[in-house]
Amino acid sequence: MQIGRFITIEGGEGVGKSTQIEAVRATIASAGYVVVTTREPGGTERAERIRDLLLTPTAEAMPLACELLLMFAARSTHLENVIRPALEQGRWVICDRFTDASYAYQGGGCGVPHEQIAFLERFVQGDLRPDLTLLLDAPIELAMARARRRNSDRGERLGDRFEREQNAFFDKVRAAYVTIARDEPERIKVIDAAQPIEQVRFAVEEIVTNFIRQVRR
Amino acid sequence: MQIGRFITIEGGEGVGKSTQIEAVRATIASAGYVVVTTREPGGTERAERIRDLLLTPTAEAMPLACELLLMFAARSTHLENVIRPALEQGRWVICDRFTDASYAYQGGGCGVPHEQIAFLERFVQGDLRPDLTLLLDAPIELAMARARRRNSDRGERLGDRFEREQNAFFDKVRAAYVTIARDEPERIKVIDAAQPIEQVRFAVEEIVTNFIRQVRR
Repeated sequence: MQIGRFITIEGGEGVGKSTQIEAVRATIASAGYVVVTTREPGGTERAERIRDLLLTPTAEAMPLACELLLMFAARSTHLENVIRPALEQGRWVICDRFTDASYAYQGGGCGVPHEQIAFLERFVQGDLRPDLTLLLDAPIELAMARARRRNSDRGERLGDRFEREQNAFFDKVRAAYVTIARDEPERIKVIDAAQPIEQVRFAVEEIVTNFIRQVRR
Repeated sequence: MQIGRFITIEGGEGVGKSTQIEAVRATIASAGYVVVTTREPGGTERAERIRDLLLTPTAEAMPLACELLLMFAARSTHLENVIRPALEQGRWVICDRFTDASYAYQGGGCGVPHEQIAFLERFVQGDLRPDLTLLLDAPIELAMARARRRNSDRGERLGDRFEREQNAFFDKVRAAYVTIARDEPERIKVIDAAQPIEQVRFAVEEIVTNFIRQVRR
């Protein structure tokens, strides 16, 4: 039995998720709810070990099916050990990425058919879905320029060809996110993340405040 | 394109799989084929790390869905990086447990519906199935007595109540294996593993020799 609310933040690289998650958390906390913030893949010890398997480059090729099954395996243990118990205790859960990211990345980006992801979603989640999803949307060039700036601060530098291929991939991811949002306008609110950061924050706070008002009605 | 042959060995705890896998390997090798022996879950570096996640007890509860998805994630990377390449090079692959074990343990033992496992099987394997499966079958009491003898050599000792619960579980696993074998008599050969070990070995060698003869026809 769910009492708390489940909010997810979605978007590609460089759209400013981390900053805006803090805005969501602060808005909910100041309305008097206990908030749990977590992330995917990850959120439990086992799920973080699965995240490691997913993100650490290895000589062993990663089949697309393996990647998707690891994502949902991590999601399963995260849901049963963290998200569901928190919701049942009346806490509000804010999760950095969730199943919409599987549809966008492994689906839109890599070509896994929608119905195969939908099967895994039902298998792992039953009928649990986020109550509210904020999709931070920005043109790839802008988002990548931000990510590049962040990475060059860390002393990294990507080759141009790799960058073009990467941009084509992220264009597909972005298009998939936008399609998902169009199909579920009640749950998913799209925010223009190309605006100055304070404008984005204002938009986020407005959506979350309206959502809290609806919950209290 | 598959040229080699794919042989799996199945059965519960204490049925003597390790000994008989060696008999299968020796029979095939002496017929002049290059043999790869491997095991599930495992068989690659990533899959062995997933095996660790599956077999290491933790305080974090393991949801059944997570267990099954990890099994098939390990299977996916094992198939694409070891089994398929070996078969395409004309090698014969002998695998200690494969998807029949998912049907028997997570299906028969834990109650995951058959069609959910069948979806994952198609998703990960496409139409690849073992060419021959040897099912070593023995009454649970006998197999558990053997496993107990092996474990007490290692200084372990299980409580009686835990043992009874465990036996009930393994009875369900055994029944599931027998049902699977009845549904696919061409592929799956059941061997009475309650016989003396030399008799079992003789039965195994006879089945494998007949299989090699068919392949050469």
